[in-house]
Amino acid sequence: MQENTTRPFKRKIDALEKELGVLQRHCRQLGIPVLIAFEGYRASGRGGMINRLIQPLDPRGYKVSCVATATVDEQMRPFLWRFWLHVPSTERMAIFDRSWYWKLLDESVSGKPNQKQLIRAYEDVTAFEQQLNDSGIAIFKFFLDISAAEQAARCEKRRRNPITAWRADEGSAPPYDDYKKAAERMIEATDLSDSPWKVVNADHLPSANAVVLDHLVTVLQKRVDDVAANNGLTRTPPLRDKLPAFSDAPNLQRIDLSIRLAGDAYRKLLLKRQQRIFELHHEIHRLRIPVVIVYEGWDASGKGGNIRRLTREMDPRGYEVIPVSAPSETEKAHHYLWRFWNQFPKAGHLTIFDRSWYGRVLVERIEGFCSETDWQRAYNEINIMEESFCQFGAVVVKFWMHIDQKEQLRRFTARKKDPFKRWKMTDEDFRNREKWTAYEQAINDMFLRTHTPHAPWSAIEGNCKRFARIKALDIVIDAIEKRIEQEQ
Amino acid sequence: MQENTTRPFKRKIDALEKELGVLQRHCRQLGIPVLIAFEGYRASGRGGMINRLIQPLDPRGYKVSCVATATVDEQMRPFLWRFWLHVPSTERMAIFDRSWYWKLLDESVSGKPNQKQLIRAYEDVTAFEQQLNDSGIAIFKFFLDISAAEQAARCEKRRRNPITAWRADEGSAPPYDDYKKAAERMIEATDLSDSPWKVVNADHLPSANAVVLDHLVTVLQKRVDDVAANNGLTRTPPLRDKLPAFSDAPNLQRIDLSIRLAGDAYRKLLLKRQQRIFELHHEIHRLRIPVVIVYEGWDASGKGGNIRRLTREMDPRGYEVIPVSAPSETEKAHHYLWRFWNQFPKAGHLTIFDRSWYGRVLVERIEGFCSETDWQRAYNEINIMEESFCQFGAVVVKFWMHIDQKEQLRRFTARKKDPFKRWKMTDEDFRNREKWTAYEQAINDMFLRTHTPHAPWSAIEGNCKRFARIKALDIVIDAIEKRIEQEQ
Repeated sequence: MQENTTRPFKRKIDALEKELGVLQRHCRQLGIPVLIAFEGYRASGRGGMINRLIQPLDPRGYKVSCVATATVDEQMRPFLWRFWLHVPSTERMAIFDRSWYWKLLDESVSGKPNQKQLIRAYEDVTAFEQQLNDSGIAIFKFFLDISAAEQAARCEKRRRNPITAWRADEGSAPPYDDYKKAAERMIEATDLSDSPWKVVNADHLPSANAVVLDHLVTVLQKRVDDVAANNGLTRTPPLRDKLPAFSDAPNLQRIDLSIRLAGDAYRKLLLKRQQRIFELHHEIHRLRIPVVIVYEGWDASGKGGNIRRLTREMDPRGYEVIPVSAPSETEKAHHYLWRFWNQFPKAGHLTIFDRSWYGRVLVERIEGFCSETDWQRAYNEINIMEESFCQFGAVVVKFWMHIDQKEQLRRFTARKKDPFKRWKMTDEDFRNREKWTAYEQAINDMFLRTHTPHAPWSAIEGNCKRFARIKALDIVIDAIEKRIEQEQ
Repeated sequence: MQENTTRPFKRKIDALEKELGVLQRHCRQLGIPVLIAFEGYRASGRGGMINRLIQPLDPRGYKVSCVATATVDEQMRPFLWRFWLHVPSTERMAIFDRSWYWKLLDESVSGKPNQKQLIRAYEDVTAFEQQLNDSGIAIFKFFLDISAAEQAARCEKRRRNPITAWRADEGSAPPYDDYKKAAERMIEATDLSDSPWKVVNADHLPSANAVVLDHLVTVLQKRVDDVAANNGLTRTPPLRDKLPAFSDAPNLQRIDLSIRLAGDAYRKLLLKRQQRIFELHHEIHRLRIPVVIVYEGWDASGKGGNIRRLTREMDPRGYEVIPVSAPSETEKAHHYLWRFWNQFPKAGHLTIFDRSWYGRVLVERIEGFCSETDWQRAYNEINIMEESFCQFGAVVVKFWMHIDQKEQLRRFTARKKDPFKRWKMTDEDFRNREKWTAYEQAINDMFLRTHTPHAPWSAIEGNCKRFARIKALDIVIDAIEKRIEQEQ
């Protein structure tokens, strides 16, 4: 039956496929990442639809991801983790068979989450899409709609074919009407102006294919024209009074750099604190608590030495130090938070970032590597990301290692003389000193805008390395102990 | 007790750590990848040893991998897959807590594999290390040796400490003597001249630490000096009569390009074959058989169109097309087979490579992107890799899409006129035509050396695209059916 009614669509589909192939290349040239998600009823034909869709595409330019059940690795990360990992770069369309709505939709049918959890989940998803939109990703959300009769007929056909019968097991599949109600609720709650749903009747697959192609081609063509006309995306920066602000945030001017700790007191405290870290590292592993520690600070402020004291008694199988420098080509082609989501520790592990996502509002702001709109938007985006971490149960500790200009110069000079440390120094380091005041402004802004209750900043008085090490250890110990208490 | 005897080692360790830090940078500058594997008895202190080892290293330059039990993803790939994924690049030392010996050692104790399987496994591991060695990776294999009494004491200490008691569960741990016997057997069988074992007495950790550091520093220093003196690695090419050769291999001169298939016969056959592929794709999924299909061939030989006909009725959640072009910076910093191991399909999935690892003996040979030694060694390396795939149960199909020079020119000219295909053409394509004869030689050599019984070549007569598509479909169907028969 379908074969007979296919012919009238064939010419239309062929033409649209050619146009989509051209648009795929244009998007790539203009740096527009494209994300296409398919949701829909059981047996609504998502697989076949996706397979038709990718036929005209250059295989270098797309990637199909099948969502379904979470792997063990995914279960040990926040829910949005795996979607962040698959966020498209400017080089590849990302096509999702099921999406970040999967859990919401299926769990909502089974009645697992309560009303409050559901609202929270919708908020998360909305914020996620908002961020992707803001970064210039074109998002498509298709919902394949079929009638109850058509669904029953397709499932029956699958069951009768010995080749596909094993796929027809409906053990836990919810009744059509329940799913319909949940889907309608979901679509209404998440039909955002920048990423609306496109509901497509899929009772007849060729016509559904034509509708999907037509929608993609129309919207992408408009996007391509816009970007080409404006020579890139144009976006208004967030209003100053809409920026987050935390009045109890630290401030560089209030840090007392005269604090000192004597050598023998230091050595005694150090061994005790490291022993406690050894114990807590075991505890977080046992309790499956992920820990994220961020080290930001001036050049030569002692981040490396501080990290070594912190990790001295840890089991290397349970922690990782991620040194963050300029992004690679692949990283640059992605959303700036992508590489950090990628490094989020699994439950029970500890990850130390030696520099971090705060580069966006520090070096990228100062050096003009991103637009003002980009770094102003970043405060809120970073707060949202860290909140996701904490919601998942992670401990987030953020250090600013502070020293003054005089101390920095002293350390630079000492480094230049030390044959084992000389390689660490570049002329760049000395040039950066001229931007000290600009950095001070950026650092204080960063404190003010991202000193959230769930992930507050700790300024470390760093002129005395010994004091800085003990203080950092104390803060990590305290944060982990508080988190463990919640488990008991 | 340990604290008291630590002091004499401290100065020695400090000096060695500094040297190791310097060597790490030199290795990076000279492009020497370093792989360090730790095996040893239960409670022999691998974790602590590794943590000491990484303290003096630049965190940008190493990565610790914990092997232990395989994840689901790893279980669905050949045993060596996960080790290939962690093979170090020129930029990072790879440090393994347990290694590719893990399974061999632990399973050998439990008596799981029979003598034949054990010999086979040792051969695999030896070939693996040989390849890494040949590519210039410096391999270190440490075995931490402790006495039965020391092991018992350490386990008791763990048990008594409430923080570590959960790690002390010895449910399935084999008796010390059995493990010792298996370890001795393993070390004897795999103490290779290029990658020997270093057995280190670890009853006293600080002295073991000093021995490990000393060994690393001595061997790495020698390697660095050698590479620096020779301005790179020098290696002799394999002897011509040691190269593999398969007398029944295809040969370009014997391919009959006059074969044609009429349009209506083609359309009928195509639908039938695609229906069969649809069925077989379900079957391999159900039976968890991985399938690897390689498309090599002249430019414009019709690879893309052929692949589209093959995948037309497949479920996009179960297959992937990997277009292979010039390696990225990250890929270049790794062993040339690394990026292909990375893409090996999981059990039940199908991966199509549009160009492949054979680039090593085709474009890289012709363009001089690798040395003659490198591409001559590649035949054997490729055969070994494909054999690993097949041993794991994979189907490996390899196509050479053949056309003659006249047909290629006709297609190039047509492409230049087609507004939807013009982008595919570059001047490079026309320049490559001048190297036709050199390529013919390389292709025939490739056939001769890699037409193995487990992964034979199929030459496809490609002047008639219709014939080529049906023939390729037939070969894939036949290969999968034969493999499925083995399951029954």
